[in-house]
Parts: sequence; structure tokens; C-alpha cells
Amino acid sequence: MGRPRVVIIGGGFGGLSAARTLANAEVDVVVLDRRNHHLFQPLLYQVAAAALSPGDIASPIRWILRDQANVQVWLADATRIDVERRVVHLADGPGEVAYDALILAAGVTHAYFGHDEWREHAPGLKTLEDALAIRARVLMAFELAEREKDQAVQRRLLTFVVIGGGPTGVELAGALAEISRHALVNDFRTIDPEAARIILVEGGAEVLQTYPQPLTAFARRALERLGVSVRTGKPVTRVEADRVMVGEDSIEAGTILWAAGVAASPLGSSLGVPLDSAGRVIVGRDLTIPGHPEVAVIGDLASFQTEEGHTLPGVAQVAMQQGAHAARGALAALAGRPRDPFHYRFYGNMATIGRNSAIGDFGWVRLKGYPAWLAWLFIHLMQLVGFRNRFSVLIQWAVSYLTYQRSVRLITGPSREPS
Amino acid sequence: MGRPRVVIIGGGFGGLSAARTLANAEVDVVVLDRRNHHLFQPLLYQVAAAALSPGDIASPIRWILRDQANVQVWLADATRIDVERRVVHLADGPGEVAYDALILAAGVTHAYFGHDEWREHAPGLKTLEDALAIRARVLMAFELAEREKDQAVQRRLLTFVVIGGGPTGVELAGALAEISRHALVNDFRTIDPEAARIILVEGGAEVLQTYPQPLTAFARRALERLGVSVRTGKPVTRVEADRVMVGEDSIEAGTILWAAGVAASPLGSSLGVPLDSAGRVIVGRDLTIPGHPEVAVIGDLASFQTEEGHTLPGVAQVAMQQGAHAARGALAALAGRPRDPFHYRFYGNMATIGRNSAIGDFGWVRLKGYPAWLAWLFIHLMQLVGFRNRFSVLIQWAVSYLTYQRSVRLITGPSREPS
Repeated sequence: MGRPRVVIIGGGFGGLSAARTLANAEVDVVVLDRRNHHLFQPLLYQVAAAALSPGDIASPIRWILRDQANVQVWLADATRIDVERRVVHLADGPGEVAYDALILAAGVTHAYFGHDEWREHAPGLKTLEDALAIRARVLMAFELAEREKDQAVQRRLLTFVVIGGGPTGVELAGALAEISRHALVNDFRTIDPEAARIILVEGGAEVLQTYPQPLTAFARRALERLGVSVRTGKPVTRVEADRVMVGEDSIEAGTILWAAGVAASPLGSSLGVPLDSAGRVIVGRDLTIPGHPEVAVIGDLASFQTEEGHTLPGVAQVAMQQGAHAARGALAALAGRPRDPFHYRFYGNMATIGRNSAIGDFGWVRLKGYPAWLAWLFIHLMQLVGFRNRFSVLIQWAVSYLTYQRSVRLITGPSREPS
Repeated sequence: MGRPRVVIIGGGFGGLSAARTLANAEVDVVVLDRRNHHLFQPLLYQVAAAALSPGDIASPIRWILRDQANVQVWLADATRIDVERRVVHLADGPGEVAYDALILAAGVTHAYFGHDEWREHAPGLKTLEDALAIRARVLMAFELAEREKDQAVQRRLLTFVVIGGGPTGVELAGALAEISRHALVNDFRTIDPEAARIILVEGGAEVLQTYPQPLTAFARRALERLGVSVRTGKPVTRVEADRVMVGEDSIEAGTILWAAGVAASPLGSSLGVPLDSAGRVIVGRDLTIPGHPEVAVIGDLASFQTEEGHTLPGVAQVAMQQGAHAARGALAALAGRPRDPFHYRFYGNMATIGRNSAIGDFGWVRLKGYPAWLAWLFIHLMQLVGFRNRFSVLIQWAVSYLTYQRSVRLITGPSREPS
């Protein structure tokens, strides 16, 4: 048709926001993603904790964009970007797709600080598959403990270590404590699920370090009330099957989970422009890369410095605002106009600690405890993509809350049997 | 404690029914299953068809039996039964478990009529993993077709063959027709999901052969109205990747699904007693095996002849009635009393054809069409194990029905990429 084509790589918060912003524009939009679904990452830990089902927090990307006639969605694995020829190389199917403007929102994956051998012992949490694998591992630990006669082995099986005291680590540890204290309490005969030990390890001085101090102190106390043992100030030096070294201390643990670090998608490096130490693409004020005003990088994959000199964090809010901005910028660039600089509007940050408590920093107000949890619940339900998901999650939470039952406690998948 | 121990192998309809019947008996009960969940098999095809989530049709076995203090549930893989020593051998954990009475309800798996090489091309539907793999395969076919430029390849990708015209095959074919005719209609740009061809292949003379003739004829017409092409009377002679031979005809198909045959669990053969041609254990009137009044075999794994001389089918009703009977029989045997003979009470058989139609044979009345579908819906909702599941499934169906949306249309798992 001769209409310019905007290619968006990644169907996460950033990519979807960009695609939606282009809804009525005179461009053809192609959204590429390796998965067929958009994932509501903030609730992924609840799938791992067997409180929600995958379908509750994910929707097919083409379903989300079904009413947008100018959008095509391709399930495709982008392998490389050729900024000179302006094409994205694909691992299969048509082989490549050309663009007039590109919005790269490919995100991040786990990083093990150069210790990739830790990966098999301490799985991370980024995808639905990760969440189901973690769920299977946690539930399997209780199952094995139930059959186990050796007290020392049973104690090891019931020790869970979460590495990383950021929001994901805190949420995971809180959810694990609740599973063992409440949800499983009547289901076992030979073990006492309350005997489970949940240990949260953070190398820095405090959990949730990016929050203001009164809130981090509150979070720590709330975790400890739930029965989580919080260890800060010493880094993890070694991860083995069934054992973690924290500084000089050795912790025997049947389940070790990783929530400590992320690495940028390798697609960023194929752009041939400077990256920061985490592998993220250093973008200019207008989110584009040097020398290529047609290429914008957004979300977790972008390293963006504000005028005040700090780098924006990898959260959904940043990705969504950047997605909309990059889409408008692409239209400007295609029309030969300059792109505007990006300004981030901070609406707030939240983290939950178990079922009843959370902390929230909204700049103008700080919340903690139950009011913060209610705010968290409300905001996240409102944000969930698609009516069915929101409604179903609400029902599920309500029932789960009232009954403390976790009927989604299914062990599925190839990792069912422990190695 | 010296109380006799009843071991139940299998947490399906038969095993659970047996365990529940033993609720207040003076015995220790151990339920063994390779999976941690009971599966509501009659709705499994809906998970494959992306209409329900795994959590909607499955519940942890230990959660179902949580209030029964005399029951232990072990996640364990039984490998062999030693009827002389009265122990069940396990693949791991404690190694073996002794019994005073045994109820074997290990069920069946797919059978490929001696063509095990067909398995990789035509997956069957028995477990949640099977259902998710089939779902991924079906959705992936549409995804690949959307990117495909070659018309012949696109046509092949959009051809789905279901082998086997029993209830599972009919339900799968009906659900596939609905996915392509309704659910996906607005989601694709370059393909027309209505162009999908659904072909149901049955070697016998008619689909749903075990039903009375007026009902089978109705079912065939209902399938054809949904857009399913029904081919009966010629057996499948060959299954390859992307191709099925039916008699002399070759059908190119991107997705081939197997709903044709089952084989009994190999545990049956370790009993050392006669098996029928399908590998099922031939049991006596009281459900026990020759020479071992302490061992009963029930459900799909048992071959039971009624006084009228026909073999009971592998359906949930039979398994549940046999489970209860075998449990009472075990108590009798442990008390030194003889077991009563088993009598099957036929309440009815049902099969659905799509969202609005079904057939039901209740002996005293035969239903077809919408009334049968309503009866099917009601009966299955009432039977679903656990309040949460029932409620959630009801909500989900209601929303799905009103909106024709399938938000659980997620492609997950290791089989995401086509081979």
C-alpha cells in the first residue's frame, strides 16, 4: 500500500503501549514476539506461588490488539537488527522484515553475575514457564518431605532460600511464607508445613533499597512477622544443588530461587551502539540511538538518563510511557519532523509483602500496611489487560482470600520429577 | 498402630471414590499417584481447546482428601506389585510400601495399535501436559499460517485431523471447529480462520458407536453443521508429520490429534494374572484377581464382565462405583468376610458436540441437541471436585459463552516451537 511500516519488537508493556498509540495512524504496524501472549509481570510471582493460574495474568497479544486493523502480530523470534538495511532478521518463517521505523522493546532476562552455572540450581522468574517450574519445585519439596523419614533431609527439603531483596524477591518470600503457614496446613500428615524456613538473602544493606527508609524498615518487619528470615549485607558467594553460601555461612536448602539480577536482551548489542554495564542500550533524550532517528529503544532494554542524572528503573510505568512516546516519535520521524524529548512522570512504586501488607511510595504520599495493600490490589486489578482476566482474578483472589485454599496448586510440566 | 493398611494406586475417579468410602473406617489409607492432582478427565478437551485453564479441571489430591485424617497421599511412581509379599514397589523415596489390602486404579494411557512411531506426529489427550501441548500445537498452526505466504502450505497448516470418533474425538473436533469459526475470527489479518478444515476420522461405521443409532446420526449431522468433515468406515493406515493416510487417501494436515485407542497401565501385568487383549486385568464378580482376595482392580484398568456378558466401558461412572465397592470389599476382606459381587448401575452416557449441542442416553430417556447440552453442563458442573473449581468454571464458561473470547489461549511450555 506504500504506507510506512513501524515494526515493534516485544509485546510487553512497552511494545503494547506503542502499538496502541499507533491505533489510528496511517502506518502499518507489525508486532513481533517470541511468545503469543502478553504477560502481566507484576503478578507473575502469584503464579509461582500457586495463587493464580497462567491464564489469569496473560492474554494473547493478537487478542489484545484484535480491533486495531493496522496491526499484524507475528509469533517470531527476532535474532538480529540490521540498522543499515533497516531489516529485522527472524529465526524462521519469512526470514526478515523491513521497517521504516523500529521500536525495540525486547526486555531483559535473568543474569547470574557471571555465574551461569548457578542457573540450574536457582531458577529465576521471568516467564510463565519459569513460574510453573518454580511452583512445581516448591510443591515438590513439600511432597518429598512428606515421604521422607530422615529428619535432616526433611529439614533441608523444607528450607527455601530466595536470593535478591528487590520487589520480586520480597513478594516471592512473602508468598512462600503464606503457602507454608496457611494454605498447606491441613494437607500433610507427617510434616508440619509451618516448620518450613523461608530465608531472603540480599547482598545490599536493606531489602527494597529503592524505597525511602521508613518504608524499607516497615517491609522488613512485615516480612519477619510472616516468618521470613531476612539476611542483608552479605552477598551470595556460591550456589550449589541444595546449598547456598552467604558470605562465609552455608545454608542447606532444598529450594533456591533467584530474584537478584537481570541482563538485557542480546538484540540490543546487534544495534552496534554503546551499551551500559548491564548490556542496556544507551538512548538519547528522544529514546533513539545515535545516528538512527528511525530506531527507538524503550523499556527494560533502554538505559535512559533523566535531566537530573539518574537512570530510569525497569518498571512497567516507564516502559508504557516510553512506548507511547516512541510511537508518537516514530510518526514524527516518518513525517520528517524532529522527535520530542521524553519526560518521565512518576506516579508511584509499590511492593507487596504477603496478603495483607504492602508499601507504596507515590511521591506526595507514602502508604504502608493494609491501606497500601488495598491500593496495590486496586491499581493492579484495574491495569490487568482484558475484562475476563480482571474479573476472573478478582473472583479467584476473593475465594482464595476467604478460604486460604489454593486449588491451582498443580504440579505440571516436564520438571515434575526432581533430578 | 497395628491398623491394617489399604493402599490405593491412582488418584482418578476410581481411586478417589475408594479413598472417600474409607473415610471413617478403622484402616490407614495410602493413596499413591505419579501426579499431585486429580484430573476431571471429561473436561480435558476444553483445556486442549483453550476454553479452560488447567486449574479449572484439576485439584491437588491431598487437598481433596485433606479432611480425611486416616489418609496419607504420596506423590510416588509405583513400578511393580509383588502380590506374594504384598508390597508395592516405588521408583524413588521409601522404595516400597506394604499393604493389607490393595485397590489398583492406575488407569490407561494412549495406544497406537502397535504404531508407536505415530505418537510424535499425533499426540493424544490423557494428561494436563497433553492438553497444553495440543493447545500449543493448534494455536501455533494458526500463528504459522498467519506468517505464511505459500497458499498450499497455509492450507496444510489450517487442516486439522482428529483420529478417533469416540467421545473425546467428537468433543475435540467440535471444539476445534468453534475455535476457528468464532473465537479466532477477528484476530488474524492474512488468514481467514474460517478457512480451517477440521476432519474427524473414524475407522468404524459411525461416530460415537456405543450410543443408540438415532443419537449417532444426530451427532454426525451436528458435527457437519459445525463445519467438521466426518469420514467413517476407513481406518487410518499411516501417520506422518503433516500427513495422514486414511485407507488409500492422503490428507495433508498441519495438526494431527489422536483420540483412537488406549492401553492399560503396565502395572496390571505385574500382578501375574490373565489380561484381556487391551492389557486390562480380568477381574472376578467381586473385582478381585484370582487367588488374591486382598487385591481389587477397578476403573479403566479392569476388565469386568456383567452378568449379561458385556464388558463395562472405561467411563467415570464405572470407576466411581467400582471404587466405592472395592473399598467396602477391602473392609470385608480385612474382617475375614467375603466380598459382595459388583453390580453396575447405569445412570447414563453423554457426549457434547460443540457449545450448544450434545447427546445423552439415560436408558429411560434419550436427549439430543440443546436440552442434552444443558443436562451435560449441569451434571458436569455438579460433579467437579471442589467448590472453587466449580464456581470458577461456571464464571469462565459464562464469560466465554457471552463473548466468544478465549483469553486462556496461551501457548506455553517446551513444545512452543514446531519441530
